[in-house]
Amino acid sequence: MRTRAPKYLLGAAVGAVAATLLIGSTAFAADEDPIVVLGQQTSLLWVVIGAVLVIFMQAGFALVETGFTQKKNAAEVMSTNFAIFGLGFIGFLFVGFPLAFAGFSYGPMGLTSAMNGDGLPAVGGEFTGILYWGYNHLGDAASPALLGFFLYMVAFMDTTATIPTGSMAERWKWKSFVIWGLFCGAVYYPLFAAWTWGGGWLAKSWETMSLGAGYVDFAGSGVVHAVGGAAALAGAIVLGPRIGKYGPDGKPRAIPGHNIPMAMLGCFILLFGWFGFNAASTFASTDIQFATVAANTAIAGAVGSIVAMYYITWRTGKPDPGMMVNGMLAGLVAITAPCAFVAPWAAALIGLIAAVLCIEAVFFLERRGVDDPVGAVAVHGVCGTFGVLAVGIFANGKYGAGWNGSSSEGVEGIIKGDWSQLGAQALGALVIWTIIFGIVFAFFKIQNKLTKGGIRSPEADEIAGLDIPEMGVAAYND
Amino acid sequence: MRTRAPKYLLGAAVGAVAATLLIGSTAFAADEDPIVVLGQQTSLLWVVIGAVLVIFMQAGFALVETGFTQKKNAAEVMSTNFAIFGLGFIGFLFVGFPLAFAGFSYGPMGLTSAMNGDGLPAVGGEFTGILYWGYNHLGDAASPALLGFFLYMVAFMDTTATIPTGSMAERWKWKSFVIWGLFCGAVYYPLFAAWTWGGGWLAKSWETMSLGAGYVDFAGSGVVHAVGGAAALAGAIVLGPRIGKYGPDGKPRAIPGHNIPMAMLGCFILLFGWFGFNAASTFASTDIQFATVAANTAIAGAVGSIVAMYYITWRTGKPDPGMMVNGMLAGLVAITAPCAFVAPWAAALIGLIAAVLCIEAVFFLERRGVDDPVGAVAVHGVCGTFGVLAVGIFANGKYGAGWNGSSSEGVEGIIKGDWSQLGAQALGALVIWTIIFGIVFAFFKIQNKLTKGGIRSPEADEIAGLDIPEMGVAAYND
Amino acid sequence: MRTRAPKYLLGAAVGAVAATLLIGSTAFAADEDPIVVLGQQTSLLWVVIGAVLVIFMQAGFALVETGFTQKKNAAEVMSTNFAIFGLGFIGFLFVGFPLAFAGFSYGPMGLTSAMNGDGLPAVGGEFTGILYWGYNHLGDAASPALLGFFLYMVAFMDTTATIPTGSMAERWKWKSFVIWGLFCGAVYYPLFAAWTWGGGWLAKSWETMSLGAGYVDFAGSGVVHAVGGAAALAGAIVLGPRIGKYGPDGKPRAIPGHNIPMAMLGCFILLFGWFGFNAASTFASTDIQFATVAANTAIAGAVGSIVAMYYITWRTGKPDPGMMVNGMLAGLVAITAPCAFVAPWAAALIGLIAAVLCIEAVFFLERRGVDDPVGAVAVHGVCGTFGVLAVGIFANGKYGAGWNGSSSEGVEGIIKGDWSQLGAQALGALVIWTIIFGIVFAFFKIQNKLTKGGIRSPEADEIAGLDIPEMGVAAYND
Repeated sequence: MRTRAPKYLLGAAVGAVAATLLIGSTAFAADEDPIVVLGQQTSLLWVVIGAVLVIFMQAGFALVETGFTQKKNAAEVMSTNFAIFGLGFIGFLFVGFPLAFAGFSYGPMGLTSAMNGDGLPAVGGEFTGILYWGYNHLGDAASPALLGFFLYMVAFMDTTATIPTGSMAERWKWKSFVIWGLFCGAVYYPLFAAWTWGGGWLAKSWETMSLGAGYVDFAGSGVVHAVGGAAALAGAIVLGPRIGKYGPDGKPRAIPGHNIPMAMLGCFILLFGWFGFNAASTFASTDIQFATVAANTAIAGAVGSIVAMYYITWRTGKPDPGMMVNGMLAGLVAITAPCAFVAPWAAALIGLIAAVLCIEAVFFLERRGVDDPVGAVAVHGVCGTFGVLAVGIFANGKYGAGWNGSSSEGVEGIIKGDWSQLGAQALGALVIWTIIFGIVFAFFKIQNKLTKGGIRSPEADEIAGLDIPEMGVAAYND
Repeated sequence: MRTRAPKYLLGAAVGAVAATLLIGSTAFAADEDPIVVLGQQTSLLWVVIGAVLVIFMQAGFALVETGFTQKKNAAEVMSTNFAIFGLGFIGFLFVGFPLAFAGFSYGPMGLTSAMNGDGLPAVGGEFTGILYWGYNHLGDAASPALLGFFLYMVAFMDTTATIPTGSMAERWKWKSFVIWGLFCGAVYYPLFAAWTWGGGWLAKSWETMSLGAGYVDFAGSGVVHAVGGAAALAGAIVLGPRIGKYGPDGKPRAIPGHNIPMAMLGCFILLFGWFGFNAASTFASTDIQFATVAANTAIAGAVGSIVAMYYITWRTGKPDPGMMVNGMLAGLVAITAPCAFVAPWAAALIGLIAAVLCIEAVFFLERRGVDDPVGAVAVHGVCGTFGVLAVGIFANGKYGAGWNGSSSEGVEGIIKGDWSQLGAQALGALVIWTIIFGIVFAFFKIQNKLTKGGIRSPEADEIAGLDIPEMGVAAYND
Repeated sequence: MRTRAPKYLLGAAVGAVAATLLIGSTAFAADEDPIVVLGQQTSLLWVVIGAVLVIFMQAGFALVETGFTQKKNAAEVMSTNFAIFGLGFIGFLFVGFPLAFAGFSYGPMGLTSAMNGDGLPAVGGEFTGILYWGYNHLGDAASPALLGFFLYMVAFMDTTATIPTGSMAERWKWKSFVIWGLFCGAVYYPLFAAWTWGGGWLAKSWETMSLGAGYVDFAGSGVVHAVGGAAALAGAIVLGPRIGKYGPDGKPRAIPGHNIPMAMLGCFILLFGWFGFNAASTFASTDIQFATVAANTAIAGAVGSIVAMYYITWRTGKPDPGMMVNGMLAGLVAITAPCAFVAPWAAALIGLIAAVLCIEAVFFLERRGVDDPVGAVAVHGVCGTFGVLAVGIFANGKYGAGWNGSSSEGVEGIIKGDWSQLGAQALGALVIWTIIFGIVFAFFKIQNKLTKGGIRSPEADEIAGLDIPEMGVAAYND
């Protein structure tokens, strides 16, 4: 989940060759330490298990978003969350993955070394990365290590891709959504990923701008969540609010979700999968920081849910289930970047702050005319950004030596008296909310222009519910 | 998942003895390489984790089938999928497992070596296998390695057992279903499993008929899915279509499922569990082909879902959620046999073909009078058979050296110019659709004769819904 | 899951230090055997994966309880199960965990050695444990190994905490529930845990009272389930039955659950997570007894579900889905203590007995005026107690050498002619149903006194349903 990763992957890839040559045997190449090889094999297993957990998060997003929206759109909302997995996947498989991780114009080639771990010649120019990947890793020379890494990365991309399906729910044309899915997997997600985890200019800002260890984002508060949240905001703005969301007086009205237990089940599934998201981002079962990461993740989520319960009760008088869900998700999103770099007390504090931030952001956006049916912008955009900054505040210097190839002895935030890491984080956040947001806003605007009737569903469909006109079936039948 | 497996299992079993003798200690027997032992322990862990994932697939099947059927039968459909776990399990625990994997009359004894890994004398005659298992592995001499293997295998059997609960839904008597569950676990599933994974005559067809490396089925497109699909077809034929499925003109009518989000959640759970199904079929964490398998599985499922979306839109004008679900499942079923033997591009192509095949099969079967409420025959029967054949077409020779005890240097399909593997696969498919189908068809026919009133629910119950008459409760209460 | 555990944890902790010092490197401290270190790292991974599975069980409990209760309370019941995760977690994080596992007044300090695995000075007096934990493991000196262990243990505590939300459902004030959550995590759960897994006086009863190997409870039939069941009983008694549960004639009436498929999905999730609960309680991937544990767990659950089906059909004429669910859970609860110590045949028998016990207990409690909407007392209280005793009956002496620091060569029950282990188990069960039950009964009684209007919801709220008055939203909206 950063340029340091290739070390493990490279090792695993090399081990892979040895193992492939001798499958079914316990013998290993003479020049490979069998203990190292065994550790690499187990590490690759951990990455694959992590990928599987993250893929299951798609079910969580689907249930949260469908539960928090109206019955008349349930088949459509569920289906966007279902189809996005394959749409983003296909875009990423053929274009996005090599774009993000083969390097080229975005700067130093982060994962190129991993891609070449099987001993083939290095990748160079702009399109070579894609061609190299296509000819080699989709072909007979496919390396298990790189395919395992791909699987983990494609699951992260799909998380980003599914975030706007929440903020744009109940009024988004199916065909327009389909194009978003392909675009996100092929182009949108890979951009910021290349600049950071792919070893690009933000990763190297320690070198070029003396900013801490460069942009540090352990499992993607920024790379996945804030980038997804930026798309969610752009999409919600371009679509405009749902019919009936704002009264004639311009005041927002509540449109209650149709199935609270469904949404809560979704949140449980997200919590479950998040351990794969964060803890397997060590890329190595031999780096036992995965246990610290897992505990910090649980702490932030648990604290987030309870703080949200108290905060919303204080604000409205009731422990709103929707806010408890969003409070837990807020904590999970915010801890995702700093989870490996902070002490448990800081994880609790991050969860606390994130829950309050999230609730305030929900109300703020609603007041400002942004209709986000599930709170995706508040959860992923706002708390994702906070998570990015939290690294620069709370990192305790105990982990992350050599991150991004820097000479850092451990990532340190301002609690350790170092402000330069916060600079790298703030730069990353700024890039997301300017360049990346600008790209996705332009994408939706242009798509809206080019699409006959725009990307928003016809008014009659929206009022009747999208299920029958878009999907041809109702979600529920008696 | 084949006769080569015992190597790992045997090793693990041996390691088990060493470890058992020294539990709680990090010391090992002097004549065992501790690195090998550690790899075996981790491999056994991988098999157990795989088993747990496959067991969870029962929930996926339950939700897909219940969501795609009517509200008035929801408690009954859900309950068949729930009870089948225990019914099949009990049949397999006491009879089916040793029948499949202790060998005897079916030919060379595949897993006998694993069963004897603890140094006890070899199993011989027809009933000895069952007795041996009963007295040893259900008793105090139970070996952790074999119990772990049992757990993985019982989960596969239960997948087969649950497939007909879909095609036979909404008109199957509970008591008749119960007998199916026991029969499937004890007898039906073990037959083809013994002939293939158990080291039987189909596994040995490389030796007896010069067919490639013998029948090759990495994780069970044939052994699990097509065998289950054959039972699903036989059962649907014997039961006949649901009342109202065909109009007076004989034309099929749509009977919409009662809960689309439920079915989609089920599909997500199946996708999740499928990684255990396929990737843990390496039986070894030290065989990093598990990563290739996992990636290929995801690729086929993702492509299947999107191809189905486009294909059904082209055919009917709407991206039917049910067909997206079946398209993903079609891709997953089809890649299950070839997942370890093909390049990622072939996995994508297999997913593409499977999705189209599945949709066409749904329409074909419906036109031909087979009422399969959830598309189980199309998904598991047709795409499972295609998956078996796909090994013989797309295998690239990079994996599977020594499979089934053959001298193969890697399983090769016709894309590598070798047609003999396709012969072995076609023979396996033929056996499923003749002998195995014949057995299960006869089973349902005879059961129908012997059961008072037949195995189909009384007409009044079917019209009112099976929940109250069969289960005594309604699925939903206000 | 017992005082022997520290050995592994201690080792892992030591390995952790070595690995932390050399993160990203495959080199290790010269005085550590790299094979041992690799085994410890993988073992810690297994504990973390186990924790993740157990945390997911919260979703299972939520669905079972919500499905088995009424629609008008669905948002509230689901929300209690959601919020309990964070409430218990916070209580346990800051107070309960060090209370349970830092030792002090409860007797010899079981896990103190693990807590000191990083070389810091030993913990001594009563409050020092909490302070030590707070200053060290929530701070910069946090050890991955101990945080991984914490994560596993907090998940167990939350299982206990969530059990009363079932028996007390549909009539429990939200604010009173919140206090229970914090109390359970901080005080209630840690008591019995300290006396057993924490190395307290029940663990040491082999020494002080010559009772077998002391109290033996592999994964918590007693420590988690019976302790939770005791709270469930106390809470149900203090609250009294729901309005309408008993007719004017005093006879119980059925109040059917509102969503049977939801409850069955919940049971599947519980089955899935239970493998983490039981099998990861080896604390070591190098102790392959985890495979035996996993198989025994599945056997007891499968047999339990089918025996319940037959038993309830024999008793009432219908294979009630609710009883099938409770039968599986009964088997799982009962096998939790003995799973590592018994042969598979005994696991089957334990599942069989538990299912019958559970059904009879449901009817018995209902007749005696205890209104437990989901059968939590029968499942967790009664079958948990049976599981504790089952160790003393069926343990076969093949596992558990040196348990609780005893000189035992393997835990033996009366089937091996040893009655002293049953004595230790009976003592544990007695303590749960006297001291522990007394504490929790007093807690609810006192809370009821101190709370204005008592801890039970106002009658009008209960009749209307708790969703709107307590949570401010309905569970379902059209």
